[in-house]
Amino acid sequence: MKTTVHALLFDVFGTVVDWRGSLIKNLEAFGQKHTITADWSGLVDAWQSEAHGQLVEQIRERTLPWHPLDDVHRLALQEVLPRYGLVGLTDAEVTWIHRLWHRLEPWPDTLAGLSRLKQHYSVSAFSNGNVALLVDMARHARLSWDMIFGADLFNHYKPDAEFYLRACTLLGHEPEQVMVCAAHNDDLQAASELGLRTAFIQRPMEKGPGGPFESPTGSWDLIASDLQDLADQLGPEIIDYR
Amino acid sequence: MKTTVHALLFDVFGTVVDWRGSLIKNLEAFGQKHTITADWSGLVDAWQSEAHGQLVEQIRERTLPWHPLDDVHRLALQEVLPRYGLVGLTDAEVTWIHRLWHRLEPWPDTLAGLSRLKQHYSVSAFSNGNVALLVDMARHARLSWDMIFGADLFNHYKPDAEFYLRACTLLGHEPEQVMVCAAHNDDLQAASELGLRTAFIQRPMEKGPGGPFESPTGSWDLIASDLQDLADQLGPEIIDYR
Repeated sequence: MKTTVHALLFDVFGTVVDWRGSLIKNLEAFGQKHTITADWSGLVDAWQSEAHGQLVEQIRERTLPWHPLDDVHRLALQEVLPRYGLVGLTDAEVTWIHRLWHRLEPWPDTLAGLSRLKQHYSVSAFSNGNVALLVDMARHARLSWDMIFGADLFNHYKPDAEFYLRACTLLGHEPEQVMVCAAHNDDLQAASELGLRTAFIQRPMEKGPGGPFESPTGSWDLIASDLQDLADQLGPEIIDYR
Repeated sequence: MKTTVHALLFDVFGTVVDWRGSLIKNLEAFGQKHTITADWSGLVDAWQSEAHGQLVEQIRERTLPWHPLDDVHRLALQEVLPRYGLVGLTDAEVTWIHRLWHRLEPWPDTLAGLSRLKQHYSVSAFSNGNVALLVDMARHARLSWDMIFGADLFNHYKPDAEFYLRACTLLGHEPEQVMVCAAHNDDLQAASELGLRTAFIQRPMEKGPGGPFESPTGSWDLIASDLQDLADQLGPEIIDYR
């Protein structure tokens, strides 16, 4: 059977925006302004790991009740701040830090790549972020999504199957008409098992210069060096990849 | 208490797009192409009334199970076509007519008005349409929504309270920080009762030249002649209206 791709679902953190670089840059500026010295990159890595690793997994396993990602970030931040010696911050300062996730910056190729892809495909955010966070981020970074699928629409975090299948249904497409684009193998693995198409986006700088990064480990439909390369490979027409 | 508006929720059919004019124009072209004569405007009015009136109300009252608006349009179309003498259409032709709701045209002031409003407020679709329909329409008509709230996200049609309150929660705002903008009093009545702000948009041409139209019947926060006027009245700053 000939099938065609109609819709692209983009993982956001790491694939579309440079969460780590953006957070560190803003926290370093915060430190300079308030003359606070800290291991900002260590804090950011611990914060992300605690939130997107530990807490999201506990919610997926239902050992923790549902919390949208903004709440997860807040819980993780309160856990991580004292570990990095940040104990005297005001509520307003903690809130300012917490909200940095709403103002992440895109990778250099993101805006041009999404703009080209949008000419021929519907292009949606497909993220564990909550809708409010993703709307703020899109307005800040000028990401013009056709639709935003935030995890709090469904109270399911990726890679829960429900999230992938509900997005396909809401877009009115069969899974094989939808391609998940992500820099993370676990996201594409879930997509692939459910019959969606997969594009691995290489983001060697996600964890910073010299940091660890994921290489494609599955037989994904496409492997792209960035979103411009993805637009080159997908081309101007809806193409059959099987 | 001083409160401010952060987010605008737009009713779509009639407020943002000219559903009636768009459907009639396309059906007239269809009739000319296939040399079919019919009362196209009568058919469109009956179709909309059957779908958005009868069937949606039955779903709200739970006498009919949940159907997204695409399915409602299909059921209503099959009901209405024979009444207007259209009995020999192929499946492809019926599908083409059915899908016209995905390609409605904006009012002349819509794109410029939304673009101005979007500079200062988050601007979302808030419609009984399903997400797939609204995504297609936005791509066709170049409506750049910050977020699309389609009824099939929640399986509730307006004016069910759940739809209004879930949209506020997902945007991370209190009801009084969110303004519903609509050409229909029942939509604003529900919004107002739930604590949201209200802007009545005058659309005297919704049912065509000389057709019936709604005048504002409640004490809404704003009354605007179109979306440019709404942008004029809301202004460049987030303003307190109480």
